[in-house]
Amino acid sequence: MTDAPTRPRALTGIQPSGTPHIGNLLGAIEPALALQDSHECFFFVASYHALTTQRDPALLRERIFEVAATWLALGLDPERTVLWNQHAVPEVTELAWILGCLTSKSTLDKAHAFKDAVAQGKTEVINAGLYTYPVLMAADILAFDTNVVPVGKDQKQHVEMARDMAQRFNRIYGETLVVPEPSIQERVATVPGIDGRKMSKSYGNHIELWLPPKKLRKRFMAIVTDATPLEAPKDPDTCNVFALYRLFATPEQAADLAARYRAGGLGYGHAKQEVFELVDARLREPRERYLELRAHPERVEAILEAGAERARRVARRTLDRVRTAVGL
Amino acid sequence: MTDAPTRPRALTGIQPSGTPHIGNLLGAIEPALALQDSHECFFFVASYHALTTQRDPALLRERIFEVAATWLALGLDPERTVLWNQHAVPEVTELAWILGCLTSKSTLDKAHAFKDAVAQGKTEVINAGLYTYPVLMAADILAFDTNVVPVGKDQKQHVEMARDMAQRFNRIYGETLVVPEPSIQERVATVPGIDGRKMSKSYGNHIELWLPPKKLRKRFMAIVTDATPLEAPKDPDTCNVFALYRLFATPEQAADLAARYRAGGLGYGHAKQEVFELVDARLREPRERYLELRAHPERVEAILEAGAERARRVARRTLDRVRTAVGL
Repeated sequence: MTDAPTRPRALTGIQPSGTPHIGNLLGAIEPALALQDSHECFFFVASYHALTTQRDPALLRERIFEVAATWLALGLDPERTVLWNQHAVPEVTELAWILGCLTSKSTLDKAHAFKDAVAQGKTEVINAGLYTYPVLMAADILAFDTNVVPVGKDQKQHVEMARDMAQRFNRIYGETLVVPEPSIQERVATVPGIDGRKMSKSYGNHIELWLPPKKLRKRFMAIVTDATPLEAPKDPDTCNVFALYRLFATPEQAADLAARYRAGGLGYGHAKQEVFELVDARLREPRERYLELRAHPERVEAILEAGAERARRVARRTLDRVRTAVGL
Repeated sequence: MTDAPTRPRALTGIQPSGTPHIGNLLGAIEPALALQDSHECFFFVASYHALTTQRDPALLRERIFEVAATWLALGLDPERTVLWNQHAVPEVTELAWILGCLTSKSTLDKAHAFKDAVAQGKTEVINAGLYTYPVLMAADILAFDTNVVPVGKDQKQHVEMARDMAQRFNRIYGETLVVPEPSIQERVATVPGIDGRKMSKSYGNHIELWLPPKKLRKRFMAIVTDATPLEAPKDPDTCNVFALYRLFATPEQAADLAARYRAGGLGYGHAKQEVFELVDARLREPRERYLELRAHPERVEAILEAGAERARRVARRTLDRVRTAVGL
């Protein structure tokens, strides 16, 4: 009755929230792409979700393209992995309506995103989209017979809500929906920004992924350090430069730089140059691929369209089961 | 850019809420069908809305069929009027998501249906579907470039909310959606039930439309009257029988029966027989058509499918405009 993929199916939504930075790379993109070897991956650009906050059509289009090109450049393999724009499979909005009819309002009142907005006094920005966000997210998960949803601890609630809705649906209407499992990503790095706080666009402390090498180097040179003179020994564990370096280095490289920190005679400028070179080397090939895709946007479009075709096939089968179950 | 129908387009949603009664006939069905001469009519069976309260798939299917067959039997002309099942045009759920992103939660908090449920302490039945009901209703109206929405006074708010959403959308994204007008139906009769209160299934005082004549007669015979003896003059204006009679009679017939009431010598049993005969005569041909459609459900299906085709064509054009406008 349901799809039985040979490998468990993992689903991830990608927010088109603006130019990706190296915090996204380590914190979200690489962990998700690593799943491609063990899972059948379904990745979608969360364009409907973006509408809850984005009102500029040209910017939204650009961001959707940018994020899709970024993931492809970094190794998303469209032969193995299904990548599509959420709005190319509008069946999810239909499923969201149906699931909403089984979801009590009090459940939505408990959703983190809504509670946070209320706590921050941002009630004026709370639109119906933001408020019912967990229902569309559940529909995203359930429409594709998802087995596993990789999430950070803070997003676990969304998967739990999707599980509740699937179980409730199955209890009322008979076994119809696959009940997904969260897969909590414990070991995902928190990436510090150039000021040492968590890297985030809202802090302005981020390092964009696709800067040309010169500008990329400039951002690394702007990492905040203390005033220890060049000759003095330095503590790698309290240094923003080293904190970034270790995330990109092999254990041997990290141990070597740490030793040179402690020995003294290593200036922060030199350490910054080293971390820049490491990151630049890591990004060199992806950057070429990214620029190639920017020069040929039709390639990205074609991949998204082929992905949408595959995703739609699955969603339509699910929706057929759901409609029959509820009497439509 | 938008459809320009030669006649104004009127849209009405029909709730598949169970066996229709003569209160529905006079209060909703006939006024809507009368629009067919002056308007291009778009009528849909509100199957998605029904899911907010109905959980029995077989019953829902039966009610959808029953209500469609009823409207067809009573004169809905599928050549002129577009009739479809709401769920055959899932584009409305997509539009509802997009409109929801422009609709503040505080607007939904003011919706009558929600406030009534809260006032009645029925918070446990308030699901996300019921709560966001006005957004789907607005999508129903706006997806079809509706000019006019005929409503009772108590439903005016829905049209106002749809107007607000259309105007807000057009302000943010440029002229895209047709702004509908409510058409308040002032003169629609309130039909009394057999106990004199407003006819309503929930009071159990209703007279079903499609009863076979014997059972229909029995329901009229059950109308509650006072104990005035047969010979005595009677007041037509306080009599439940007369209240129903006048709604179906010509002015001449009503004046004649009123005179006989006042003259005395007319028993209530006789008056009941007269109103039964009047209604039965009015329903005779529709009843035959209804039974014919019940015997050939595939005819109803075919009409709904052809209507869905026409409705989808309009909705898809609207959604194309909307998606382009928002950047999807």
